[in-house]
Amino acid sequence: MMKAGILGVGLIGGSAALALKKHGAKIVGFDQNENHLKKALALGLIDEIGHNNTYQGLDYLIIAIPVNATKLVLPEILEEIDSQTTVIDMGSTKSGICNAVRNHPKRGNFVAAHPIAGTENSGPEAAIEDLFKNKVNIICEKDKSATAHHKKALDFFELLQMKCLEMDADEHDRHIAFVSHLSHISSFVLGQTVLEIEKDEKNIFNMAGSGFASTVRLAKSSPEMWGPIFQQNKSALLEALQAYTANLEAFKEKIENDDIEGLIKTMEEVNRIRKVLDGIKA
Amino acid sequence: MMKAGILGVGLIGGSAALALKKHGAKIVGFDQNENHLKKALALGLIDEIGHNNTYQGLDYLIIAIPVNATKLVLPEILEEIDSQTTVIDMGSTKSGICNAVRNHPKRGNFVAAHPIAGTENSGPEAAIEDLFKNKVNIICEKDKSATAHHKKALDFFELLQMKCLEMDADEHDRHIAFVSHLSHISSFVLGQTVLEIEKDEKNIFNMAGSGFASTVRLAKSSPEMWGPIFQQNKSALLEALQAYTANLEAFKEKIENDDIEGLIKTMEEVNRIRKVLDGIKA
Repeated sequence: MMKAGILGVGLIGGSAALALKKHGAKIVGFDQNENHLKKALALGLIDEIGHNNTYQGLDYLIIAIPVNATKLVLPEILEEIDSQTTVIDMGSTKSGICNAVRNHPKRGNFVAAHPIAGTENSGPEAAIEDLFKNKVNIICEKDKSATAHHKKALDFFELLQMKCLEMDADEHDRHIAFVSHLSHISSFVLGQTVLEIEKDEKNIFNMAGSGFASTVRLAKSSPEMWGPIFQQNKSALLEALQAYTANLEAFKEKIENDDIEGLIKTMEEVNRIRKVLDGIKA
Repeated sequence: MMKAGILGVGLIGGSAALALKKHGAKIVGFDQNENHLKKALALGLIDEIGHNNTYQGLDYLIIAIPVNATKLVLPEILEEIDSQTTVIDMGSTKSGICNAVRNHPKRGNFVAAHPIAGTENSGPEAAIEDLFKNKVNIICEKDKSATAHHKKALDFFELLQMKCLEMDADEHDRHIAFVSHLSHISSFVLGQTVLEIEKDEKNIFNMAGSGFASTVRLAKSSPEMWGPIFQQNKSALLEALQAYTANLEAFKEKIENDDIEGLIKTMEEVNRIRKVLDGIKA
């Protein structure tokens, strides 16, 4: 029977656990948060609670904790694990984590991955068995993983019913800054701005529609998870924010100048996002 | 039998037509766009096509065209209509339109409204019978409408199954700038920024998840409708954009300074949007 350790039994780790259990795997949960472990056990996400970072005897160790914590603990984890254990990180940034173990003697046991899946919810209760189904997973620095461990990682993502793509870690971080991290920031800042002006939340209740709800949805996301992501992806994200701010300024200027035609032209060009969105498996 | 004219047979006007037809009303459609009229007739949104702006013999005339066009044509429309006709505007800005007919001899026939309902789609094909059901409608400058016409407007919105609230027109425009118009701008600018950087749309297809799709959804909205809204609500919107930009700058600075704790604190405060969103009928 396959035995997998899950480090971090929240939305991502818990969902992976559920998908693996469906295929008969035995799951050992690890988490700094004792409450999360107890909940994960009660919810049936894991079969047992692992103690004192004892990562031995595992076929897989799946890491789904904040990316700064991963960067910190991954080198130690690679020391501890058995030679047959495949360690897979599921974090949203890849360069920093890859660099932290670049010259590690057991680098071959590690597969750097980013499954493009999630919701705005967090914690063990947010876990969903089908979270990863039919979604894309990005694997970075494939050549630094030993062939056997890379193959095992592909098997794992096949159990999750994901489609795997390969990408350079820096390239991954730059693209993901634009297509994912920037969305989270624009959503958080929108939520912040509306909450600040509407001290009386009744006005938001009454006047906000489904459009606001959709645009601000990501502002419900976990701060403990996203703070480190933004810091780890600093340089790509500053580039994305620079581009976003410049476009925002240009849009604002058109409003200031009553340039309705200019606004319409800009929006018409952006309308082709409809075609792009139709291609995203949401 | 109730006879209602619908000026502008797109998403909003078409949906109102469907809701009225469900209650047995006869619908006459008016639109500058001949194709829209033909489609609306073929789709069964309207019973007949109205010609040469002949607005006589109507119980209601519902205006659902771009807000700058409404401002322009409303004074003439009020001249033309019969004394029993109630004219209701459904646009997303209210001050400019109210001011355009402030001293009109037939101001009493007009009810300024803003049903908080919509989707990112547009045109007659986008019409949905239940679009307005259980949503909020704002009525502005109630006291300037004659009692009988105000009462008829309430009847109309009851047929649409909406909850009506009253609000000052300036106050409406300021709140709606924050809770609706700003969402549309942040979404358009996000879409623009991602499309510009990702010349190869494959990367968006592969790397964007449901979060991006949700945040950028409003960027599919109709430019012809939104350009005039942004221009009409210029001053409130510039205030909203100012606040949004300042918050964005502060967020960016925290990233620049590796201030993870500051980022987390900001996001934790914004997380209370979850409670607010739970109160929105989406």
